[in-house]
Amino acid sequence: MTSDLAASNVRPAALVGVLAVVGVGLIGGSFAAALRRRGAVGRVLGAGRQAGTLEQARRLGLIDQAVTLQQAAEQADLILLAAPVGATRRILEELAPHLRSHTIVTDAGSTKLDVVRAAYAALGGKAAQFIPGHPIAGAETTGPQAADADLYINRTVVLTPLPENAAEAKTLLTRAWERCGARVVTMDAQAHDVALASVSHVPHFLASVFMEQVAAAHDSSARMALAGTGFRDFTRIAAGSPEMWRDIFMANRDALLSELQEVKAALERAEQCVREGDGEGLHDFLERAALARRFWGSRSGLS
Amino acid sequence: MTSDLAASNVRPAALVGVLAVVGVGLIGGSFAAALRRRGAVGRVLGAGRQAGTLEQARRLGLIDQAVTLQQAAEQADLILLAAPVGATRRILEELAPHLRSHTIVTDAGSTKLDVVRAAYAALGGKAAQFIPGHPIAGAETTGPQAADADLYINRTVVLTPLPENAAEAKTLLTRAWERCGARVVTMDAQAHDVALASVSHVPHFLASVFMEQVAAAHDSSARMALAGTGFRDFTRIAAGSPEMWRDIFMANRDALLSELQEVKAALERAEQCVREGDGEGLHDFLERAALARRFWGSRSGLS
Repeated sequence: MTSDLAASNVRPAALVGVLAVVGVGLIGGSFAAALRRRGAVGRVLGAGRQAGTLEQARRLGLIDQAVTLQQAAEQADLILLAAPVGATRRILEELAPHLRSHTIVTDAGSTKLDVVRAAYAALGGKAAQFIPGHPIAGAETTGPQAADADLYINRTVVLTPLPENAAEAKTLLTRAWERCGARVVTMDAQAHDVALASVSHVPHFLASVFMEQVAAAHDSSARMALAGTGFRDFTRIAAGSPEMWRDIFMANRDALLSELQEVKAALERAEQCVREGDGEGLHDFLERAALARRFWGSRSGLS
Repeated sequence: MTSDLAASNVRPAALVGVLAVVGVGLIGGSFAAALRRRGAVGRVLGAGRQAGTLEQARRLGLIDQAVTLQQAAEQADLILLAAPVGATRRILEELAPHLRSHTIVTDAGSTKLDVVRAAYAALGGKAAQFIPGHPIAGAETTGPQAADADLYINRTVVLTPLPENAAEAKTLLTRAWERCGARVVTMDAQAHDVALASVSHVPHFLASVFMEQVAAAHDSSARMALAGTGFRDFTRIAAGSPEMWRDIFMANRDALLSELQEVKAALERAEQCVREGDGEGLHDFLERAALARRFWGSRSGLS
């Protein structure tokens, strides 16, 4: 798949002729860098609201050229949206009128049902060209300077395709993520949002609640002076972007609230053991947690 | 301070002539290794229930000799208890009859009110020789092979002295920890237990509750396949020893339960924002958490 524009100065064998990345930060910049390093992309265009960020991305070699959304739609074979999830609909609306028929659009948002809704609303008859995606990779660092060609190695990328997506389009997108070193899994958008509510949104919510509670205590500085490495690890995610996480929590509100109910029920059972001096019950609960965590650690490749 | 036994083969300038460590794992072994590397100790004795562990500690050079508790009491100038906190009273009872009058005994337990009670009960008239302590340093790795002479560099050690402790004894113990690179703070045992309930015991409790809840879900493997680095950091402490943490939670039950009430109230306030679609309230809460975490991270020297 090569575009006319790219064909002149690029090996025809590149998996993606022209890639456009909307939002050239950690996620978008790393995708571009990974494909480029593996020789899987011809030309990389970058779009975004901040001219300074695009210029920085160009100087870092992440993109070849800064373009408008219209130019991206007119020139790219593959477009990755890596801007804040709340901007998805607006960006798709700007791309829609100029999108060539073979171009594939995907995204990197942490929630998928809302993105699917935005895609249908913005793209209408062109919705078949949009394949929702979510690379599960760290977001504590931001900006083009954080981009890393190795970010996606051994990471999971979830695709939640629409019924309208063409098989060849899904194959190409899967190959592109695999060239970045990722493992691609496909699932239903609803199942994705429920699973992510559990393993990503709840931990972030609890870490933030805990951090805020400690900080609000009248003796918070005395407390925090005694905080060690356990506190450091447990609260690390609470430092994340308030804007980004507000959007995620709001977008996945139902699944988040439902999962929090389950966590509160589990908390009540564990507290009951402590209240009643049930050392055996407390030990069994802690042992189930420890074994599950150690098993996950040995399997995940992340520990 | 040098013992007769150590005087023959040791520089008289060593801060501690003979050190005995009861429980030669990460905490006790690292204390011995740190003092030895800084030339602050003459001879190191090790006591403990597992002969294999003591032999391993000797081969690793952490201790010079394995001894009984009676021998430790008869020979040491400073004794550090670094065995599980539940064993504190029994160990002190075994040491008590043989303890020389100048010997200082301290401990490394994560809770202090229960240790103070155990010390008075076991030592009676010799309680003045016991200075309760708590080095706040990682406990995810265990055993003599995990011992590290640098473990305490820039870490906090809390001492919660008894009214009976002599000033010179407190000074010597403070100097010993400072030679390990630690920052020593002194506080009341009750204040210690309340602060630790907040910044150590609650995070461990919540991480374990969350981990167990995810593991118990009918679709737990599908969820855990999507878990990323945020999940990894948030749950890391849940892998800790169930025995050790059961003892800590039970020993600090009142402070833990009271602190959990505060966390649940904060959780309810944050959930309310999500339920009511109060994006501004949610953002403000997340921002307070993020700013507090970033500030702590920049100050703690642990991030």
